[in-house]
Amino acid sequence: MKAFIEMTKEELAATKIELDQKYNEFKQQHLNLDMSRGKPSSKQLDLSMELLNCHEYLSNGVDCRNYGGLEGLMDLRKFFAELLSVNVDNVLIGGTSSLTLMFDYLTQAMLSGVLGNTPWSKLDHVKFLCPAPGYDRHFAFLEYFGIEMITVPMNEDGPDLDVIREYIKDDHVKGMFCVPKYSNPTGTTYSDEIVKGLAALKPAAKDFRIIYDNAYYVHDLSQPGDQLLNIFDELPKYNNEDLVIMVASTSKITFAGSGVSCIVASDNNIADIKKRLTIQSISQDKMNQLRHLVFFKDIPTLKKHMQKHAEILKPKFDCVIDSLTKELAGKEVAKWTTPNGGYFISLDVMPGCAKRVGELCKEAGVTLTTIGATFPYGKDPQDSNIRIAPSYPSVDELTKAALLLSICVQIAAIEKLSEN
Amino acid sequence: MKAFIEMTKEELAATKIELDQKYNEFKQQHLNLDMSRGKPSSKQLDLSMELLNCHEYLSNGVDCRNYGGLEGLMDLRKFFAELLSVNVDNVLIGGTSSLTLMFDYLTQAMLSGVLGNTPWSKLDHVKFLCPAPGYDRHFAFLEYFGIEMITVPMNEDGPDLDVIREYIKDDHVKGMFCVPKYSNPTGTTYSDEIVKGLAALKPAAKDFRIIYDNAYYVHDLSQPGDQLLNIFDELPKYNNEDLVIMVASTSKITFAGSGVSCIVASDNNIADIKKRLTIQSISQDKMNQLRHLVFFKDIPTLKKHMQKHAEILKPKFDCVIDSLTKELAGKEVAKWTTPNGGYFISLDVMPGCAKRVGELCKEAGVTLTTIGATFPYGKDPQDSNIRIAPSYPSVDELTKAALLLSICVQIAAIEKLSEN
Repeated sequence: MKAFIEMTKEELAATKIELDQKYNEFKQQHLNLDMSRGKPSSKQLDLSMELLNCHEYLSNGVDCRNYGGLEGLMDLRKFFAELLSVNVDNVLIGGTSSLTLMFDYLTQAMLSGVLGNTPWSKLDHVKFLCPAPGYDRHFAFLEYFGIEMITVPMNEDGPDLDVIREYIKDDHVKGMFCVPKYSNPTGTTYSDEIVKGLAALKPAAKDFRIIYDNAYYVHDLSQPGDQLLNIFDELPKYNNEDLVIMVASTSKITFAGSGVSCIVASDNNIADIKKRLTIQSISQDKMNQLRHLVFFKDIPTLKKHMQKHAEILKPKFDCVIDSLTKELAGKEVAKWTTPNGGYFISLDVMPGCAKRVGELCKEAGVTLTTIGATFPYGKDPQDSNIRIAPSYPSVDELTKAALLLSICVQIAAIEKLSEN
Repeated sequence: MKAFIEMTKEELAATKIELDQKYNEFKQQHLNLDMSRGKPSSKQLDLSMELLNCHEYLSNGVDCRNYGGLEGLMDLRKFFAELLSVNVDNVLIGGTSSLTLMFDYLTQAMLSGVLGNTPWSKLDHVKFLCPAPGYDRHFAFLEYFGIEMITVPMNEDGPDLDVIREYIKDDHVKGMFCVPKYSNPTGTTYSDEIVKGLAALKPAAKDFRIIYDNAYYVHDLSQPGDQLLNIFDELPKYNNEDLVIMVASTSKITFAGSGVSCIVASDNNIADIKKRLTIQSISQDKMNQLRHLVFFKDIPTLKKHMQKHAEILKPKFDCVIDSLTKELAGKEVAKWTTPNGGYFISLDVMPGCAKRVGELCKEAGVTLTTIGATFPYGKDPQDSNIRIAPSYPSVDELTKAALLLSICVQIAAIEKLSEN
């Protein structure tokens, strides 16, 4: 296959005619497909229907139907502690959403400050580091709170440590978002060196926090999945116990939006968080916690359950990646990731073309994640990155959508190359 | 029965000896009873076990297992709208806790401001009006946020409007907490005049909000219960649509801590709240919403369900009130409320005696709500008010606890009268 960049104007024009024809055929199919969000499919949700057969309401003598137990059921805390290889005292169970746990932690930092430090809302200027491409909802938090976002490049082994080390000399830089395993959207799992480097950071700001969104910890597409070094084992080596606030949830394990979440942090941070929690609420939903505990049983059962997810998800990822490979390989118009887990494929098209690809797909009935959303302020400086979420559509639908996407990537590239 | 105040020193001393003897007998029983919090009893929780038999997951074509639907299921919004006689567009469904809805609303007012006004955290001084005796967790919010609390007297028909009207001339006064029906702890239902008066308030602060905690809206102890005028019908008459933020929940209808909550507010306020919600979360727990919807069926079914609660609760309230009447009537050492609903009896002992009564009860194994907790900063200026929560213990236990309480009230009174 010839690289587009090496084609003559005539060759490009001829290729474009072919592509336009295929594109118009797609338009006539009146597709209506959504590859924008990392939503589980119905088949995945069906895997957890046994949750609805739980009729228990006692957990170690605790009546889960009543008030109390703000920290979460002890057995569920133990379950997450075992899963994440941390101490049970450092785990609190939250509501249905780890997103809300992070949002609430940030509101606390804004209003009350972190461990007795000045509340961020009282400071003139607060900045956060954002490895990008990254998760748009993290960026939305920061924009909401008026926190300035600084883009940090994502490399193949994780965020660029040298860049981070430079920025954290500024004590206005108060934190950083990370998705350390199967990162959204690149699928990158941080290497041991990156995890160690993060654990060893010495930010000027004492209240600097790494918000460590461990959303895809058990979300392997094949076995063995990527291995993520446990940052909580590393932190004490650098007297950095308080540096990391980790969250996780079962949103993509059981029912999205009706699962349970957890927050993992040092003794000091947990005590700090509990000061707010005791004011904000009386108890979490212990009935849902118990339901999950009974359903999960133990870690091996959970892992088997995740393999069933993988059996549904893997063919979808393969379908998209195969299609991209078949249609685009050698044409030098795009690169894409082949993740071992998580929910996304990251596609980098020719710089200056991503928005156009989004438009072309939309016109033909396929919705992609808003172009630019993977960067702070929704602005991809290269206009190149596209997040593909293959989980929700069927393989048949994905086959069509991936082919259409490949066509649009090529059309946009030829338009770009023909500009001069 | 002779009033203690009219007794001679000798009569008081003789009475004290009798009371001390009874008190010591109680101590030897090694009681361990908790009348501190408004927790439903196991029998009440048993009424809602049918919730666990819901196997549905579709609601009007929405897959409740998946992400989305931040406003809550339309049918549940309609249910609450009908129950509370408001427009469905003005109802959002929240998580398990109305407390959290209020906390989150306050954080939003602090950080982002109300409808475009200056965030309260940017102001030098923010004050709130607190009808007292009132709910300690409301006061805890304000203390947490550093908002100054101003006590407003609670009269028999609701909070003192004249006092309120005077305070709201100060534009630092940004809001007020209300429990309009079966108020915590007095059991007062606001009269029509008070509701109209509140609806007509013209505070100097444009961002003044009445946080209207409608926690006991359907929690009658007998039929017909108190009638609360609908404040949302009154507000438009005074161009005050945006004045009230109402919350309610099913915590004391189904499972405490595993229920659903709702927030009711004007179009403007709902739009303001949704600006935060879309950042804070992806969806509420629609599975739990559907479970409740199927369980409630319709308003008449809900009302029948609440009568079953009343059948369990009424004898408990009666038991305490009968005991207080039998032991204390005519002695002029205490007054108490006889509410038609809600979760509390409010007991006013002789000024300067409440803390001592709390101590005496505690020593004999009965835990009351922390004395003073019903007032801002935990300080009852009269040291007189005690909140009794009769819902959780059994009638047998309550019989003992109420008798002990009556004894302690008298002992404390005699100690006080003997001080000079």
